[in-house]
Amino acid sequence: MLALLGSSRKEGNSEHLAKKALADIDYTSIYLRDYQINPILDKRHDAEGFTSVNDDYERLLEAFLAHDIIVFATPLYWFGMSGQMKNFFDRWSQYMRDSRYNFKGEIPKKSAYTIVTGNSPDPKISALPLIQQFHYIFDYIGMEFADYIIGQANQPGDIANDSFAIQKAELWNQKFKKNLNSTR
Amino acid sequence: MLALLGSSRKEGNSEHLAKKALADIDYTSIYLRDYQINPILDKRHDAEGFTSVNDDYERLLEAFLAHDIIVFATPLYWFGMSGQMKNFFDRWSQYMRDSRYNFKGEIPKKSAYTIVTGNSPDPKISALPLIQQFHYIFDYIGMEFADYIIGQANQPGDIANDSFAIQKAELWNQKFKKNLNSTR
Amino acid sequence: MLALLGSSRKEGNSEHLAKKALADIDYTSIYLRDYQINPILDKRHDAEGFTSVNDDYERLLEAFLAHDIIVFATPLYWFGMSGQMKNFFDRWSQYMRDSRYNFKGEIPKKSAYTIVTGNSPDPKISALPLIQQFHYIFDYIGMEFADYIIGQANQPGDIANDSFAIQKAELWNQKFKKNLNSTR
Amino acid sequence: MLALLGSSRKEGNSEHLAKKALADIDYTSIYLRDYQINPILDKRHDAEGFTSVNDDYERLLEAFLAHDIIVFATPLYWFGMSGQMKNFFDRWSQYMRDSRYNFKGEIPKKSAYTIVTGNSPDPKISALPLIQQFHYIFDYIGMEFADYIIGQANQPGDIANDSFAIQKAELWNQKFKKNLNSTR
Repeated sequence: MLALLGSSRKEGNSEHLAKKALADIDYTSIYLRDYQINPILDKRHDAEGFTSVNDDYERLLEAFLAHDIIVFATPLYWFGMSGQMKNFFDRWSQYMRDSRYNFKGEIPKKSAYTIVTGNSPDPKISALPLIQQFHYIFDYIGMEFADYIIGQANQPGDIANDSFAIQKAELWNQKFKKNLNSTR
Repeated sequence: MLALLGSSRKEGNSEHLAKKALADIDYTSIYLRDYQINPILDKRHDAEGFTSVNDDYERLLEAFLAHDIIVFATPLYWFGMSGQMKNFFDRWSQYMRDSRYNFKGEIPKKSAYTIVTGNSPDPKISALPLIQQFHYIFDYIGMEFADYIIGQANQPGDIANDSFAIQKAELWNQKFKKNLNSTR
Repeated sequence: MLALLGSSRKEGNSEHLAKKALADIDYTSIYLRDYQINPILDKRHDAEGFTSVNDDYERLLEAFLAHDIIVFATPLYWFGMSGQMKNFFDRWSQYMRDSRYNFKGEIPKKSAYTIVTGNSPDPKISALPLIQQFHYIFDYIGMEFADYIIGQANQPGDIANDSFAIQKAELWNQKFKKNLNSTR
Repeated sequence: MLALLGSSRKEGNSEHLAKKALADIDYTSIYLRDYQINPILDKRHDAEGFTSVNDDYERLLEAFLAHDIIVFATPLYWFGMSGQMKNFFDRWSQYMRDSRYNFKGEIPKKSAYTIVTGNSPDPKISALPLIQQFHYIFDYIGMEFADYIIGQANQPGDIANDSFAIQKAELWNQKFKKNLNSTR
């Protein structure tokens, strides 16, 4: 299992929920802020095609491809995922066409869980366009969009007061553990 | 008037519509791909607050603040705005708190027009979460969201076949010219 | 071609746009307010199944099934289609299972065009959930959702001032006429 | 507290969640299917205004106005609320202008909780336009939209297998009881 953490802050509220969901499970955490991810340069229509990019993306992509359950956690930045996480998705356009990676073969085995935290206006409503965007992304590439949590928090640590979000993360955790036991 | 072009490609379909909308008008074009825009580092909750960033963002922000009508044009990348444009918005979180800029004073004078182009599935539906996100963004900061165009195109130049999108860009153009004349 | 008019008012703004779109074309108009349409009684899970309903719905359904291009026009009532039109759709659940009608055979031949008019808050944004609902409806039954118009108007007749909506209705009209000529 | 049940079936899945949420609480249940609710006839722009309607709506409205916490429960019919419930809202347009009722005075005291159950495609996504519509409705009239539950179920009784939905209904129930105790 892999947690892809999109916040630019350490110990933020979306990360807190991801940790709840993955407590007592052996998983990999990736803080996107610790990686250089260049924006996509769309060369789909260029004669020479995409060219090599000098950044950290391939390490990220390899970690992504190596896991089957991915928890995408992001604060709601301007009513969308963080730019860091957006660049992670945008670069798929290059690497799904890169023969070094079996992108299209691996994707159907994966399940996505998304965690979004926001404050005001109420993210239970204002994060819905982002949830719909995640749906389109995963539907387009044929990856299961298993579930999502929308949490409400402002200051660091506030998420502990959103009992519905916390409880849903704990339900995910129970389900993850049960599935891990049954596949051993 | 300012066109903020979010595509990573030159001469793309969203740019084509922006040029139609602004034909025969004196306006400034900014290609976001030509600027280094770092992702936000959210330090709202840090004691020292935000720190200076060594990139091109302040030049972009100054251009943005100096214009009253802004046309945001972006291809639909993974059912959202491009990562380049997302980082443009994300950094607002820093500069709306920077006393060197009169961000909150200037915003209410501005009007936003957005242009989005996509291909499949039909962007008239699949771009709606992005339109809703733009609404939340502009509503949050108190900037008028005047109108949007969703165009359908795949290959470079295809947008010329989307007669509804082209015609709407021409209607914007007529309206812009009329308003410019009446304010002289 | 068939115009299904969902407004409870005659000569309203959504009807005005539908007439623009269908000007100089031979088409059938149905005012849903002139028909008794009972709400669905969901008996999918009852042993005896659905039972005969004493209202005008079967006449409506026959008109719907007899046409290939359907223009659904409704004012935005409480941010959705009118209750009259909603009952029209809800009753599909009964008749798609009624062997007297070839519902599932006819649907894939049809194209849907929808017209929605509202006033405040700006229907270009507040009608988007309804457009998304229409998308889900037509996608579910396999009927093409060709296009939509969102018009802004308050008082009867106001729609004449929404030049974008009027012009889009005129573009539909040109397209309809062209298609009719090419299929003769 | 009031449960407004929009399903056309007794003992359905949305009703099941509403009963969970209101277990061991003294509340009023209204089955909309047991009432004659005519569609709205929009006479806002008529000289004589709205006229008296011979149906059961005023009894419903009085029950609605007499309660402060309203649980709206509806199955997802064609990706919206049931036509029965839609007509309930549509008729507000008449009665918010009826001087016999203090509609606009009572509304700000109320809180709305909505329960939606659907089956396929996954209602966690396909019900989001309806959740957005509820948001617009309650926001427009100034009524708190406290929370929503989206449950997945097909056959009657299936909702018992949606552990997240059940658990959220139980959390509502705990909150309702706590609030009732604190206001005594």
